[in-house]
Amino acid sequence: MNQISNVGIYQFLAEPFHCDFTKHLFYGHLGNHLLNAADYHSDDRDFGMRYLMPIHKTWVLSRLVIEMNEMPLAYDQFYVETWVDSVIKFFTSRNFKITDGSDKVYGYGKSTWVMIDTDSRKPTNILDVKDGVILQYLETQKECPIDPVSRVNVKHQPQMVKTINTHYSDVDMNGHINSVKYMEHVLDLWDVNWYCKYHVQRMEIAYSAEAHGGDQLKLYVEEVNVTEFRVSIYKINNEKTDETEVCRSRVVFAENQS
Amino acid sequence: MNQISNVGIYQFLAEPFHCDFTKHLFYGHLGNHLLNAADYHSDDRDFGMRYLMPIHKTWVLSRLVIEMNEMPLAYDQFYVETWVDSVIKFFTSRNFKITDGSDKVYGYGKSTWVMIDTDSRKPTNILDVKDGVILQYLETQKECPIDPVSRVNVKHQPQMVKTINTHYSDVDMNGHINSVKYMEHVLDLWDVNWYCKYHVQRMEIAYSAEAHGGDQLKLYVEEVNVTEFRVSIYKINNEKTDETEVCRSRVVFAENQS
Repeated sequence: MNQISNVGIYQFLAEPFHCDFTKHLFYGHLGNHLLNAADYHSDDRDFGMRYLMPIHKTWVLSRLVIEMNEMPLAYDQFYVETWVDSVIKFFTSRNFKITDGSDKVYGYGKSTWVMIDTDSRKPTNILDVKDGVILQYLETQKECPIDPVSRVNVKHQPQMVKTINTHYSDVDMNGHINSVKYMEHVLDLWDVNWYCKYHVQRMEIAYSAEAHGGDQLKLYVEEVNVTEFRVSIYKINNEKTDETEVCRSRVVFAENQS
Repeated sequence: MNQISNVGIYQFLAEPFHCDFTKHLFYGHLGNHLLNAADYHSDDRDFGMRYLMPIHKTWVLSRLVIEMNEMPLAYDQFYVETWVDSVIKFFTSRNFKITDGSDKVYGYGKSTWVMIDTDSRKPTNILDVKDGVILQYLETQKECPIDPVSRVNVKHQPQMVKTINTHYSDVDMNGHINSVKYMEHVLDLWDVNWYCKYHVQRMEIAYSAEAHGGDQLKLYVEEVNVTEFRVSIYKINNEKTDETEVCRSRVVFAENQS
């Protein structure tokens, strides 16, 4: 019998230096809080990175979508609720609800994670960990009323708009470029003037390969309409002969209320 | 009479996604926590940014030095103690002590802040705020046994090593490039292989001008010796005719213990 609830609730603060010039929390920092909440939730239930790393396994984020009605403002306290609603062999589906701790719902998130073997870098059966301990914590009743990550197919001719070099501070504990850094790179395609008019209403990102510190990234953009864009990021190998897709994202902006 | 102590103590967690590939907290994220602690301390005592912004004043970080014996590891809880030890017209001197909440001292920091008028962008008398409320909270007895920021004079011929474009996510609530981003840009001059051998033992940074989103930055490096470097960052104006120094830093590395 588990003593701990299926839903984890973690409190965060919109730290002033994590907020943009409009005083709203940066999307990347919110993404980071969601990843941390996911880690705390799994860590508290004995299937987190801290437990997995010594047995040569880890979680890798495969897909993430965040949809926000409103972003916390500087100094706002907010709460991230997170729970796993399904497990299928290598994959888990994990949801997020972001609230003010009372009636206000800032938004929701959905994510898919793969458990990999850190030696082979291949997916590994989640249910082999502690006799399927994760199944004790499935939560299938709680609502997460946003669409899952869509198939982000790049349809038209995407335009290569930017090349980025990656560095030491882009690399996380797993030795790869941090998932959240890609979100920042994508959102940095628009300048401060754009963000005077628009804010991100929904952002999806699907990861397909891992990049390492020193890799060069190329960003390709397709404009779906005035407020919707698809961005693909490729990494270039050392000999610059090959490009591999690292992630695809879709960003939907909404007009700021004046 | 003030009811609140002169020293503020704030608890932080070395969040897993704020740690580098060696599982130690990134210097930039530590810097960010110190800035947040400074803000919470001043906010709790009615001379923080939140009080100042509506009256068209704000704090600007002028100098910061951090010297660490040891860096918190992923999941470590740590505490930042901060206090103001002097006020001279436009300037305050603020110290930091980073501990595990018990006997372990991770390190110390010292900083200098200027209060400016946000309309004129000029320094403004700190003692005009609430009849010199800040003087009630001076703490002059508590030790901060590290050297202040040295005069970071670039002596030899520095080498221009990198040009960086700044973006939306570099800009903070004040509308300027976030102070901590410069730390990251400086430390990103060394690659992952370097950080396999060395870690930052001391970092100083002195700010001289503000940069804005879209500004281009140029980094100049002078090698003092194998483990000590001076880095100056300049911004380039739109016409690319003029370079203005934005900050100077000094980084001292120490060998990792194997």
